[in-house]
Amino acid sequence: MTDTYHAPIQFTPIGVIRSCFDAKFGTPRQPGLVPSASAELILLPPYDQPGCLRGLEGCSHVWLLFLFHASAGQGWAPTVRPPRLGGNRRIGVFASRSPFRPNPIGLSAVEFEGLIERPGARGLRLRNHDLVDGTPVLDIKPYLPYSDSLPQARAPAGFEQAPDRRRVVFSAAAEADLHGAPAELRLLIAQTLALDPRPAYRQGESGRLHGMALAGCNVRWRVVDGEVRVERVER
Amino acid sequence: MTDTYHAPIQFTPIGVIRSCFDAKFGTPRQPGLVPSASAELILLPPYDQPGCLRGLEGCSHVWLLFLFHASAGQGWAPTVRPPRLGGNRRIGVFASRSPFRPNPIGLSAVEFEGLIERPGARGLRLRNHDLVDGTPVLDIKPYLPYSDSLPQARAPAGFEQAPDRRRVVFSAAAEADLHGAPAELRLLIAQTLALDPRPAYRQGESGRLHGMALAGCNVRWRVVDGEVRVERVER
Repeated sequence: MTDTYHAPIQFTPIGVIRSCFDAKFGTPRQPGLVPSASAELILLPPYDQPGCLRGLEGCSHVWLLFLFHASAGQGWAPTVRPPRLGGNRRIGVFASRSPFRPNPIGLSAVEFEGLIERPGARGLRLRNHDLVDGTPVLDIKPYLPYSDSLPQARAPAGFEQAPDRRRVVFSAAAEADLHGAPAELRLLIAQTLALDPRPAYRQGESGRLHGMALAGCNVRWRVVDGEVRVERVER
Repeated sequence: MTDTYHAPIQFTPIGVIRSCFDAKFGTPRQPGLVPSASAELILLPPYDQPGCLRGLEGCSHVWLLFLFHASAGQGWAPTVRPPRLGGNRRIGVFASRSPFRPNPIGLSAVEFEGLIERPGARGLRLRNHDLVDGTPVLDIKPYLPYSDSLPQARAPAGFEQAPDRRRVVFSAAAEADLHGAPAELRLLIAQTLALDPRPAYRQGESGRLHGMALAGCNVRWRVVDGEVRVERVER
């Protein structure tokens, strides 16, 4: 084992995410949980050449390798306490998908909806993702079911299923706020809040008012009796 | 789009692969194709603490993010000619799993067989992988079927199925070479050569003798009438 393996390696972002998730709080912790979530991946020069994406049209899903930029620089610890395990059980960082990793690279399979070809912007339209706005992307790979899809795989204890969803209700004031808004915005809010984005140490609370930046709105909500109640959608 | 997104990011290997695939030639191009392939992932300090792997025991598969070190430094081009497409059709680098990428990071889901706890070495025993000996590993993540397994995903044209396999036969001399060797070695050779590791531009040839470094052996083989014939296994 020589020192050559310890040599740092430099990577450069090839693109950046423009996402409905304006802030880290509220962004789902895995992809596939918020079907109404949309994003654009805008390629950066010199990766914004049309050739780089040729043949991607046939794909339904892509892998994104990205930088956990919102938590990068905060270091890592050998063990983490995943929210999925209630926030009090420690597991190894390599047994987790925590963003606080030695190399803070995220991995998500997201729906690929089509190419973006606008003056000054080339990239991918994405859905059902878990990426916060401004995320630097390191790589795009086609999802290949024959080697990537392993339905028989056994997950670590506690991660077998998608997380539970809470019921989401909208107050009369929130419904009034949403009047005239696209139906998709209401769906996006409901799907996002069903995941209850509160940190584990606040899961026992009831009634506290939270604010979440989503699709340009400030969504005000609280959890009461196990239900998420959307109080206002400030647009 | 500010310049901050262009800033290079430094990563450091957290481990290194010790693999039955001694050289790039012969190493499968995707995981899941050579069930008898085994490897060890040996963690490098300071990532070789036991805590880092706690809870991984429950997992059947892990994702490895690794450096394509055997081709890193050879640059990238906007389009590539994947061997799977016969080596003459060009597709975009981001529509391919080619190692010649802007950021040469590989992604493989491999079978996790257990932890290694030897004096001076901590890590993971792996199977059914596609990693060449000496590969630097950047990250280990548990495979989570609920968000990673997408059997319904549509692959790009030409990548829908696992590659075709050739029939593999052993010459009398090769059988004699293998006398007393573990049965697993014969399986490893057969599974590896069934994938026909020759580059696309040699696929039309017949009879040329090739050498492949595998599990410490020099395997001599040729393709005749569409069959792979193992001539010698020099141990």
